[in-house]
Amino acid sequence: MDNNIKIDWKYTGISDKEIYAYSEKVKKVHKELNKNIEDKDNYTGWIDLPINYEKREFEKIKKIAKKVNTDSDVLIVIGIGGSYLGARAVIDALTNKYERKSTEIIYVGNNLNPTYINEIIDYVSDKDISINVISKSGKTTEPAIAFRIFRDLMENKYGIDEARNRIFVTTTKRKGALYKIAMQEKYVKLSIPENIGGRYSVLTAVGLLPMCVAGINIDDIMAGAKCAAETYNDDNIKHNECYKYAVVRNILYANDKNIEILASYEPKLFYFAEWWKQLFGESEGKEHLGIFPSSVTYTTDLHSLGQYVQEGRRNLFETVINVENPNSDIVIGYDEEDLDELNYIAGKKLSYVNKKAMEGTIQAHVDGDVPNIVINVDYLDEIVMGQLIYFFEKACAMSGMLFGINPFDQPGVEKYKSNMYELLGKNK
Amino acid sequence: MDNNIKIDWKYTGISDKEIYAYSEKVKKVHKELNKNIEDKDNYTGWIDLPINYEKREFEKIKKIAKKVNTDSDVLIVIGIGGSYLGARAVIDALTNKYERKSTEIIYVGNNLNPTYINEIIDYVSDKDISINVISKSGKTTEPAIAFRIFRDLMENKYGIDEARNRIFVTTTKRKGALYKIAMQEKYVKLSIPENIGGRYSVLTAVGLLPMCVAGINIDDIMAGAKCAAETYNDDNIKHNECYKYAVVRNILYANDKNIEILASYEPKLFYFAEWWKQLFGESEGKEHLGIFPSSVTYTTDLHSLGQYVQEGRRNLFETVINVENPNSDIVIGYDEEDLDELNYIAGKKLSYVNKKAMEGTIQAHVDGDVPNIVINVDYLDEIVMGQLIYFFEKACAMSGMLFGINPFDQPGVEKYKSNMYELLGKNK
Repeated sequence: MDNNIKIDWKYTGISDKEIYAYSEKVKKVHKELNKNIEDKDNYTGWIDLPINYEKREFEKIKKIAKKVNTDSDVLIVIGIGGSYLGARAVIDALTNKYERKSTEIIYVGNNLNPTYINEIIDYVSDKDISINVISKSGKTTEPAIAFRIFRDLMENKYGIDEARNRIFVTTTKRKGALYKIAMQEKYVKLSIPENIGGRYSVLTAVGLLPMCVAGINIDDIMAGAKCAAETYNDDNIKHNECYKYAVVRNILYANDKNIEILASYEPKLFYFAEWWKQLFGESEGKEHLGIFPSSVTYTTDLHSLGQYVQEGRRNLFETVINVENPNSDIVIGYDEEDLDELNYIAGKKLSYVNKKAMEGTIQAHVDGDVPNIVINVDYLDEIVMGQLIYFFEKACAMSGMLFGINPFDQPGVEKYKSNMYELLGKNK
Repeated sequence: MDNNIKIDWKYTGISDKEIYAYSEKVKKVHKELNKNIEDKDNYTGWIDLPINYEKREFEKIKKIAKKVNTDSDVLIVIGIGGSYLGARAVIDALTNKYERKSTEIIYVGNNLNPTYINEIIDYVSDKDISINVISKSGKTTEPAIAFRIFRDLMENKYGIDEARNRIFVTTTKRKGALYKIAMQEKYVKLSIPENIGGRYSVLTAVGLLPMCVAGINIDDIMAGAKCAAETYNDDNIKHNECYKYAVVRNILYANDKNIEILASYEPKLFYFAEWWKQLFGESEGKEHLGIFPSSVTYTTDLHSLGQYVQEGRRNLFETVINVENPNSDIVIGYDEEDLDELNYIAGKKLSYVNKKAMEGTIQAHVDGDVPNIVINVDYLDEIVMGQLIYFFEKACAMSGMLFGINPFDQPGVEKYKSNMYELLGKNK
């Protein structure tokens, strides 16, 4: 299998010499990353996951998905942050939201908004449903509340026994509140390896079960990720584009480019950008440092944030994901009158116009002192999504460690929680 | 009618004295803004629009909406930037996407992606549709191409005569390509006043027709906006919270807080934030200055960007929209086992937990040196949306002029277009 990701560095304004100056640092971090991958305190289990994943667990995922596809119109995925963003990123990228070929996936437990939940309760009232609840501890407030609500709903709808057949639990092996609940209630369990953190967990059961239920070919997702794992395992920065992305980000940051905008011309990548924002924002935003991650869909947002990107503060750079070939195309028609003056592109494909818009935009932004990193892939499919996921995971780890921070913790996320617990009167 | 917007300034860390130091500047800008509102080159027509809007046009909008509701399952809204974001902001805020009570609204012409359009073409193939094409000139590439495609589709589906009855054009009065097409084809026309720019146009036919078709009470939208127009017409900053918001943003920016995050705990406000980002980003992002506008939905994004907000670079501030009362609520149930340890909030409403999460988050972020401006509204309805829209429009104009830039132009948006035209071989 060929790695599909080809990066164009020419719009970054950074020389090979500047990049290669990081060679030794990169080698050192690479060694550090690969040391004791199995150690649960290292949170580096995702590194060789695409090669060493548990095949039995994988078959179990497929079996569950098959059952859910047979008996459920909707799978309710309960999870927050890394417990749903990765699955949603892939599912949105590869499916048609207007015409589903498989069970619909609905995401809850990622907020505390009652209207959001009530509308979903109404919507599923006349549908057959299953639940996949995803949480390491089982005590995170948002998914825990949603699970109480939907478990109750399921038991009222189907009775306790049939509800039990429709609830699937993804949690830590042999510990935690959710594990205990699953044991007690005899729910089918899938496990989250202890050495993989939430935002790096998309290629575990966390992401794979919802994907598989949505009709995604998870063998190909893993095959793509495996290809990337092999490609990006080279400690020589000259041959490792993933590490090069990490280094270029570090150089841009050192040059006061402290906002990174992930841009694409494919609306289906919206949630991929959300996943990417958590990955990088949560990994690097600490110690009063880090690149602020933002995202846009072009050409849509050229008529929104575009003005700022072109002429606002010059502390920005863009990372553009260019999907070379769309799934389908449209030929622009000819019009006798031509009052809209579009006949000069009549007969052209819309994808061609989209491509020229991209090229024109990159040039305009680069001319306006916004460096661009252009990540090209041929098309969007499972293999490419697997490659992109692994590419960004590995780049994020390297990038954070080059910054000198720990890319695997998230101490700041606890602060709102402890304030909230205090306001709610939770006993310590 | 009471103005519903109440702002809490105590988390900004800015004293009244600092704010009142802007009194004279504010008075001067206020005078400047109110000078020659009718002048089409001033682009300040939105200022007294809620008071002086054309009632005949308004009745025409309602009549068209009634017809569309009768004969169409879907209204295709063709427009980019300000030509769809305002309508979508209000419609998403006030309707239930799972259970529509009115004609469905689908937005096209805001990108150049063929897959996006083809999926919609398939989706509407067995549905009755109408079109509302919205463009000042009629020559902007994205909506112009979409209009060619969907006009063709309509004529094939219904024949030219019936298609004509189902196409509604919102454009400049008596000029431009789209006006000419509408005249020639005898389409029903609605007009965009020349003295109102795209991102300030939501309360004209641009936003009102799609809203009305979606079942929004546009009388109440205008009544809310009128109330805000009266409330925020005071040139004394001590009594004008809208101008105060503008001043506080200027002070924060002067203190190196150059990223503003619009946050809410209501997922339905997602597109309101998109509208806001265009409004502020396009108005202020010029001359290498301006606050970078970003947005989040909490608590969702506390498990994504939350870490960065808490501990990343300290150049951020947040503007929180707090909706005091949700449309519906849920009481958290009691569980005998309590393995998830939620019984301490059993019997409490979910909205209460959401509120405590907000309070805890504001405190955590403020403690982490992220100033917060908290905008409180009692609930989400048409009147409040009208007020919020006008509040931000007026604040944006004041804020931009205090920065010393022209908040009504967008010179940078042309650059990608001219590059694209050149690459596509368009004759000058």
